[in-house]
Amino acid sequence: MSKRKDLASMGSVQAVRWQDDACVLLDQRRLPQEETYLRLEDSASVARAIADMVVRGAPAIGIAAAYGVALAVRESDAGDGAGLQSRLDILAAARPTASNLVWAIRRVCAAIDPDDRRRFDSALAEARAIHAQDIAMNRAMGELGAALIDGPCSVVTHCNAGALATGGFGTALGVVRCAWASGRIRRVFAGETRPWQQGSRLTCWELARDKIPVTLLVDSAMAQMFRQQHPQWLIVGADRVTANGDVANKIGTYSLAVLARQHGSRVMVVAPTSTLDLSTPNGDSVPIEHRSGDEIWAISGQPSGINGVAVDNPVFDITPASCVDALVTEKGVVQVPDSKSISELISGQR
Amino acid sequence: MSKRKDLASMGSVQAVRWQDDACVLLDQRRLPQEETYLRLEDSASVARAIADMVVRGAPAIGIAAAYGVALAVRESDAGDGAGLQSRLDILAAARPTASNLVWAIRRVCAAIDPDDRRRFDSALAEARAIHAQDIAMNRAMGELGAALIDGPCSVVTHCNAGALATGGFGTALGVVRCAWASGRIRRVFAGETRPWQQGSRLTCWELARDKIPVTLLVDSAMAQMFRQQHPQWLIVGADRVTANGDVANKIGTYSLAVLARQHGSRVMVVAPTSTLDLSTPNGDSVPIEHRSGDEIWAISGQPSGINGVAVDNPVFDITPASCVDALVTEKGVVQVPDSKSISELISGQR
Repeated sequence: MSKRKDLASMGSVQAVRWQDDACVLLDQRRLPQEETYLRLEDSASVARAIADMVVRGAPAIGIAAAYGVALAVRESDAGDGAGLQSRLDILAAARPTASNLVWAIRRVCAAIDPDDRRRFDSALAEARAIHAQDIAMNRAMGELGAALIDGPCSVVTHCNAGALATGGFGTALGVVRCAWASGRIRRVFAGETRPWQQGSRLTCWELARDKIPVTLLVDSAMAQMFRQQHPQWLIVGADRVTANGDVANKIGTYSLAVLARQHGSRVMVVAPTSTLDLSTPNGDSVPIEHRSGDEIWAISGQPSGINGVAVDNPVFDITPASCVDALVTEKGVVQVPDSKSISELISGQR
Repeated sequence: MSKRKDLASMGSVQAVRWQDDACVLLDQRRLPQEETYLRLEDSASVARAIADMVVRGAPAIGIAAAYGVALAVRESDAGDGAGLQSRLDILAAARPTASNLVWAIRRVCAAIDPDDRRRFDSALAEARAIHAQDIAMNRAMGELGAALIDGPCSVVTHCNAGALATGGFGTALGVVRCAWASGRIRRVFAGETRPWQQGSRLTCWELARDKIPVTLLVDSAMAQMFRQQHPQWLIVGADRVTANGDVANKIGTYSLAVLARQHGSRVMVVAPTSTLDLSTPNGDSVPIEHRSGDEIWAISGQPSGINGVAVDNPVFDITPASCVDALVTEKGVVQVPDSKSISELISGQR
């Protein structure tokens, strides 16, 4: 029989950490078969690891980039080749959709004085602060989100918005952990999340480690599951929330939000305010990353595809604010977010 | 540049055929890498091939089973072991959801006289007739369905309801072929159809052979595609249509039907009347096949799954009749099907 673990020990896997003067990343491409860690000693390697999805998830990308800035400062102070700005540009361009990437780079840069001889120490301290704050925010959001759940019930999640996607504990899965520990959740339904299987490879792995009951389905089976199981909430993370409350998140989130609405389930988006991007007015303005079609073909036994067949592989989609019942941030919960409530949240008027 | 092929030559791949005293099946598990044909000389092998998805698609399963009945008659006439009925029972139990399987077995049995010494010839002739009629019906349904499309437009399909799923030409893809040949369709969007990839492996392969433009997406990307591309129709086949017009079809069909409705696209189901099952009142009464979770895990690099994770792998779902705009059969088109219009169609009152 599964036994509930203590909440403090849940979600303790470390996707990103600073250790022995380097940024260490859990290689998420190899999970769940192998728990392999990569030691990255320069900023270009961090940028490449972000682009290649060694690390993924908006908050985890932000933290990795923050440590990457510290490495970039160290490299440019050592006078190795290119200047700091070109190194930062490479980091910022690693992936286009998550807003935490640019947010974290800006925050570390703002914390350093260009003329300070010890500016590497300042950069690293700021990156460490971003990391520690991310975990603290996740625990706070976990409690705020769990309080919205009338248990015991089942919930749905998508992709992986867990410890692996953050500094630790998780956003959407942080809510799941708190709700499970307080008896509000009976079971989690997770879609496999094609083409990268963050659901089957990462979320199932994370939840099984914490002994939280999880059922895996193919993404397209979710509609029938909503109709038959009546999950109370769809709980997801976000890669960017725009000024009007539209949510960019893993491809398939919009599909699930429509299905949740159709079947009387509610939609909860869990994201720290670093994911809110007031400079992007709405979802139409979010740059959506399209990755290679080979990621889809890889499993078909036809890795180079079929001649004459086009492939479109958008890896994010936009869920309109009108489909969101609750946006949970570390500063509080916004019900049915819109421009006004989001701007009030950011400015501390809520 | 792609050039439109003559309609007569389209969809000519043969998933099932009778050749040299045996049932020959294209092994669809190996497509698109290999075009391998299996020669099956006894009814038990045909039943196993249906269960193992060497052949799939409701009409193709029916035709294979019809040839299987002829083989069963030959075996029992030769006095090999078990009697005819037990062989037929094994065939009928091969897969639970498609109604054509039992329909075809009954039809061949009704065509033979138990006391006729040449009853194998009668059985084979009836199986051949079922096969030939299936192709003719598909061509008729293709024209009927294509006439509903105001082109030029794009359409969506799911799974594979093509030549590979039938005696030839296809049901949903038969409509696509006719509509493409008459300039009504510009492009087809096909979801990969997890976990078996009938979309990426079979539909893309079939359409590319006929030079019909097709774009492959992961299943969960369809919601955003509906919003951005405004396809005019979702066009699918069916494994069983119940007395009230509910449609059992490949898992994910219900999801797409909801999304189509939400985005102003229409839903067309293309199926011969052999797929209509008046003895099943509605979708709740359809036996839904659940296959092994290993089919989902296979691609995750964790073929035996993750300890502690449950898997649900339903391979069909139910689309309520209320989500269907047009049911296209060889006897005519039913707009927004219900019990009355379906029973009128069957009884020839339409």
